[in-house]
Amino acid sequence: MRKFYVFLIVSVVFFSCETSKNTQKSLVVNNSEALNNAIENAKPDDIIVLKDGNWKDLEINFKANGTENHPITIKAETPGGVVISGVSQLKFGGNYLVVDGLHFKGGYAKGNVVDFKLDDEHIGNYCTLTNTVIEDFNKMERDDSDRWVQFWGRHNTLSNCYIAGKTNRGPTIRIDLKGNEHINNHHRIINNHFGPRPPKGGASGETIQLGDSYTSMAPSYTLVENNLFEECNGEVEIISSKTNFNQFKNNVFYKSEGSLVTRHGNYCTIEGNYFIGDGINKNIGGIRVINTGHTIINNYFYNLIGESFRSPLAVMNGIPKSPLNRYNQVTDVVVAYNSYVNCKSPWQFGVGVNTDQKDVLPASEIRSAIPIRTIVANNTLYNSKSDSLIVVAHDKIEGVTFKSNAINNQGGYFYPVDGIAASNFEIKSISENVFIPTETLTIEPYLGFGFDKITSDLFGNSRTSNNGVGAIVETAVGDPGIFDKSKYGPSWFTQDNQTKEGQVFEISVSDNIQKKIDEAENGDTILLNSGVYSISNSLKISKAITVKAKSKGETIINYNGEAATALFELHPKGFLNVEGLVLKGNNSTKAFASLKENMFTHFGLEVNNIAIQGFNFALKVYKQAFAEHITFSNTLISDCNNGLELSEEINDKGDYNTEYLTINNCEFNNVKQNVIDYYRGGYDESTIGGNLIVKNSTFNNCGKLEKNGILLNHRGIVNVNLMDNTFKNNPVKLVALLWGAKNNSAANNTILNSGGIITEQNLKLTLMY
Amino acid sequence: MRKFYVFLIVSVVFFSCETSKNTQKSLVVNNSEALNNAIENAKPDDIIVLKDGNWKDLEINFKANGTENHPITIKAETPGGVVISGVSQLKFGGNYLVVDGLHFKGGYAKGNVVDFKLDDEHIGNYCTLTNTVIEDFNKMERDDSDRWVQFWGRHNTLSNCYIAGKTNRGPTIRIDLKGNEHINNHHRIINNHFGPRPPKGGASGETIQLGDSYTSMAPSYTLVENNLFEECNGEVEIISSKTNFNQFKNNVFYKSEGSLVTRHGNYCTIEGNYFIGDGINKNIGGIRVINTGHTIINNYFYNLIGESFRSPLAVMNGIPKSPLNRYNQVTDVVVAYNSYVNCKSPWQFGVGVNTDQKDVLPASEIRSAIPIRTIVANNTLYNSKSDSLIVVAHDKIEGVTFKSNAINNQGGYFYPVDGIAASNFEIKSISENVFIPTETLTIEPYLGFGFDKITSDLFGNSRTSNNGVGAIVETAVGDPGIFDKSKYGPSWFTQDNQTKEGQVFEISVSDNIQKKIDEAENGDTILLNSGVYSISNSLKISKAITVKAKSKGETIINYNGEAATALFELHPKGFLNVEGLVLKGNNSTKAFASLKENMFTHFGLEVNNIAIQGFNFALKVYKQAFAEHITFSNTLISDCNNGLELSEEINDKGDYNTEYLTINNCEFNNVKQNVIDYYRGGYDESTIGGNLIVKNSTFNNCGKLEKNGILLNHRGIVNVNLMDNTFKNNPVKLVALLWGAKNNSAANNTILNSGGIITEQNLKLTLMY
Repeated sequence: MRKFYVFLIVSVVFFSCETSKNTQKSLVVNNSEALNNAIENAKPDDIIVLKDGNWKDLEINFKANGTENHPITIKAETPGGVVISGVSQLKFGGNYLVVDGLHFKGGYAKGNVVDFKLDDEHIGNYCTLTNTVIEDFNKMERDDSDRWVQFWGRHNTLSNCYIAGKTNRGPTIRIDLKGNEHINNHHRIINNHFGPRPPKGGASGETIQLGDSYTSMAPSYTLVENNLFEECNGEVEIISSKTNFNQFKNNVFYKSEGSLVTRHGNYCTIEGNYFIGDGINKNIGGIRVINTGHTIINNYFYNLIGESFRSPLAVMNGIPKSPLNRYNQVTDVVVAYNSYVNCKSPWQFGVGVNTDQKDVLPASEIRSAIPIRTIVANNTLYNSKSDSLIVVAHDKIEGVTFKSNAINNQGGYFYPVDGIAASNFEIKSISENVFIPTETLTIEPYLGFGFDKITSDLFGNSRTSNNGVGAIVETAVGDPGIFDKSKYGPSWFTQDNQTKEGQVFEISVSDNIQKKIDEAENGDTILLNSGVYSISNSLKISKAITVKAKSKGETIINYNGEAATALFELHPKGFLNVEGLVLKGNNSTKAFASLKENMFTHFGLEVNNIAIQGFNFALKVYKQAFAEHITFSNTLISDCNNGLELSEEINDKGDYNTEYLTINNCEFNNVKQNVIDYYRGGYDESTIGGNLIVKNSTFNNCGKLEKNGILLNHRGIVNVNLMDNTFKNNPVKLVALLWGAKNNSAANNTILNSGGIITEQNLKLTLMY
Repeated sequence: MRKFYVFLIVSVVFFSCETSKNTQKSLVVNNSEALNNAIENAKPDDIIVLKDGNWKDLEINFKANGTENHPITIKAETPGGVVISGVSQLKFGGNYLVVDGLHFKGGYAKGNVVDFKLDDEHIGNYCTLTNTVIEDFNKMERDDSDRWVQFWGRHNTLSNCYIAGKTNRGPTIRIDLKGNEHINNHHRIINNHFGPRPPKGGASGETIQLGDSYTSMAPSYTLVENNLFEECNGEVEIISSKTNFNQFKNNVFYKSEGSLVTRHGNYCTIEGNYFIGDGINKNIGGIRVINTGHTIINNYFYNLIGESFRSPLAVMNGIPKSPLNRYNQVTDVVVAYNSYVNCKSPWQFGVGVNTDQKDVLPASEIRSAIPIRTIVANNTLYNSKSDSLIVVAHDKIEGVTFKSNAINNQGGYFYPVDGIAASNFEIKSISENVFIPTETLTIEPYLGFGFDKITSDLFGNSRTSNNGVGAIVETAVGDPGIFDKSKYGPSWFTQDNQTKEGQVFEISVSDNIQKKIDEAENGDTILLNSGVYSISNSLKISKAITVKAKSKGETIINYNGEAATALFELHPKGFLNVEGLVLKGNNSTKAFASLKENMFTHFGLEVNNIAIQGFNFALKVYKQAFAEHITFSNTLISDCNNGLELSEEINDKGDYNTEYLTINNCEFNNVKQNVIDYYRGGYDESTIGGNLIVKNSTFNNCGKLEKNGILLNHRGIVNVNLMDNTFKNNPVKLVALLWGAKNNSAANNTILNSGGIITEQNLKLTLMY
């Protein structure tokens, strides 16, 4: 048959060339009305050119119809020269439409930023968004949900775009399949650069979500190929595949805190991808497997040390007869011809087993169905430092068959598993992060059902004449250039990676601090000379800035603002570092606080060598505000009504206010309530934050007005570490209540006259699903 | 592309002819050892010929490998000349194997009768069973489960077979998809005649089951085409489709008590089928729809009057977030271009809604999710008698869109629904049961998404030039010959439909009745002259026979058998009709009883004008025995310890002992317990039997030893009708406890000093799933 197809393709290309040169027509527009007119009158082959400049509050309703060889195009005069800001959006409603070279920044959309549907009667098919940037286009509140690119219809493409900075609720990209018009879609997400997506602090922060559980039976056939995912840290799932027959090929996942997850749906192919960690960050995951019939081949895993949900290969337990939106059993999965280099305990099975929680969860939440009919074959593992546990069996693994897997564990012991044999192959570097065997391994590959269809390796070299285990059979290869930025994203765009030297603005008691802050740029420092500063209006922080005493302890700020206001008011993008100050309040104000609303993106706070005295709150973080890091070190908080208060996320949907709350070497004296109050609610195994670290700190005479009777109240926080602290004369029932089933621990604390630290194994929480 | 395909096919045929004539080789075998040897040495193109005769206890383990154009064949010397009996089976274990012309009867299989798998290493692919009969090949007990044809592997075919008479547990045909070797199977079930399958009396009596809920995510692509289903009454599902992408095309469902059901799985095509009822039997169904994405087009429905689950089109409610093995919501279904002739209330939506049973069922059993994104368009309905309710909305129907449907309701009122319009088209008969419009309807068809792919009508005529609503656009057509038996089943086989005149054997007191019974054939009558017959051994009934008094009431049988034996012992295939006798027991024996075991197929009992006196049991039916009909009429049952006892099916899996228990114009006097005891257990909405009818009967002084205090105990029986009876001086708490949610009713009964009849709306039963 092959030659007939070739003939046909050639004919098509030929016709296309011949006719297109006759008909193409360009029209330059410079305002919304002209654009709308142009769209209304557009004919196949037309090109509508947007004049360079800032287009504010632009709604592009691209209702038109091109043809297969004669699309209609909207493009920027100069690629990237058109900035779209304000309340703007782009909708495709027709066939064969192309949008090229736009730059969305400094705004947000009413609905989704890009929608491949105008309305139910005008759906995009065969449409393309390419060569475009969407940056920081966040809605005003974290809980305002949207998607930046929402797929509908069929055969649409997102290519060569750069998309980064989403902090509000909702996957960055989503494919919708509700309706026969949207299934068998064959959408393509190719050659894009997905830049940093910071942790959302709760669920619904995926970079790509394909379908949802309600359409998890639908055939999708979406292709996600040749994209770079860089620091996509939104939540535990970078890609959440929830439909069938999707393909994830040749993508690079770089230092992204999450995994590619086959969450619902079946028969996906995960082939030729790179999963690269840093050997330090345990949040960087690999592939997490749920459901049936997935094929995971020719992938490369490097320097990954995640555990359980975030392990390099996490194969989950299912729920017997699972409800539609929960966890189906893993069956009929093939994991073959992959290479693992310096990955710790890379293969974990029965992940998520929770049979020990039968007392607190309904039967329909108990993941007791082990993986079955699953084959792990022909993989290689290389550890430069030996690893004693290659396979982690969270439950029985009798349903998993291991065949012809080879490991170089430097001769070190590992818990033996049939089908994983020691081998002394060596590896060599062909580029940063990529190590391949020095020669093809001589181990005979296992030939399972369908393995004859695996005819090439990670680099596309043939396995037919020269097959071997692992992702790479041809070893005489060069740098695969996986970080070559010319392969991903728009041609015209480079990330702003300048690290300029920060300026120092030195000021005195008589100066206007706010004015200096306003003048400063990201990275600058406001250096306060010694003296007593009297301030009556909040200092508004909306950039990355350091406020520092020239001489530690000799700069005193008396804050006399209105009741309930904060000395330091943290705005979106306000990353404040304070150092060496003495802050004094009038008992009705706050030392630090987020805005109450419109926290459309993250803030951050680092407090070091500070004395905080006489405030109503040392820190108050409001609902929907989020900081990746809040750190207090070497700091004294004394005579305050409240300490650190981050407990407004009470919708019990898994949200919380900071990923890391760190208290190191601090002293809390006479803080009356909410000494530390940090809340996450909702039973959800896949939001696996926040993190509370309290160490080397002292709490004296605190909590006397605390109604719940707990000094450090961190209910629902998954990771808690209380270490080397001293609790003295605090009139509370408990210092802390640890969650035994999660990563909560306490060690080496001295407790005098302060209640105890107790552990509750299974915390009762609201069901989220 | 078409011409390229044509070219290829021609080449293939040509090569095939050229090479096959050189290599074909026949080998005749006449015993099992020779057959095994022949199989062991078989080469492509070989034909192994089984010598005509009765092959008993034959295990054919067909382990061999043919090739695409050179299969290996096992065939009967004369088609149908090889009878396979005893404990026998056929297993395919290889590629391109054909079995042709066998006749399985007079036996059963240890496992399945035909298995397309020998073991996990030897699976059948591209194998065919053809031109073969499987009749009455039942296991010894009803609960012994098997399949008569069990599919595994890929590309296997069941063609031109006649298969009938299965009464034991298990679908007649089943496709299994457990494992990647068995998915995308493209199996074909074509040109078969599925003859009568009697009601099983409980679940698991499907004629074809495709997959199960645990593999309901798997792509199957099974084709069921051009088969005749005749009286396939095993259970409520004739075909239970539980996987994806199956096709059901051009089949004829004739007087079959059940439906084609998309039970699990999605995206099935149901096209060009005939569903034919008799206008009387409400158990004859049509298509019942669950799940997503099914396409139901070009089908013809005639004379169907089933309701709810058995309505011509039953679209069910789902369970929100349904467990894997329960009811998913209906979404994205298309019902278009079908024709309904004389079908009563044919379109029923929200079938199975049970929100009113929240008190007795867990939330995971409540079907409250209505059908959504469902289109019913371009259908025709013709009623020769007007029908006031075309659409039955068991729940809200806002998720269903009706477009361009035309009805001739003889001008009669029907409850109006947008999208169903009166039309005065006429119809004509083109063959028995098939009526088509006299001319193409002029109504403009609605063009929904994907409707452009529906390019032909029920008879294959083009819709391109001459489209219209309904299943038929070309009206100048002849008899489609849907009952032409030459199109279905083996060429050599015809059903035994002789209705010979029954013989009458007249006997006297001195004769040996059993001897005469043994001599008699199906349909014969044993006529007993008047007198007193003394009998001490059970009369064994294993054929259809009538035992009759020459003069009513003047033939008296005194049964003096051992305690616990029965005067009439009903064996498999024992269909007994007794008439006019007086039967007297000794208080320790039974008048009628089934065997205790080995009831490998059904029995039947009709008792008319009989007096039954002084028995321990008037009737005792043991576990696993089943009769389609048990009828007592004009009969007196007096002075017995027990009456009619059919209550051993207590495994609560939906089983019961008779489909219809009918008591008409009978008298029960001094029956001490189990007066009528008839049990079905287990909550299962899809076993919708049995049936108890008690009418014109009198119960005096009965039930005095009844422990449960209920005179007519029919717990769990779905259809109960108590009418025109008299209950007098029965010392019980209740005459009957009716199940309000099901079809239980009582009317016009006279109750004197006997407790009452009460109704419990929602009976609490064991959950089956």
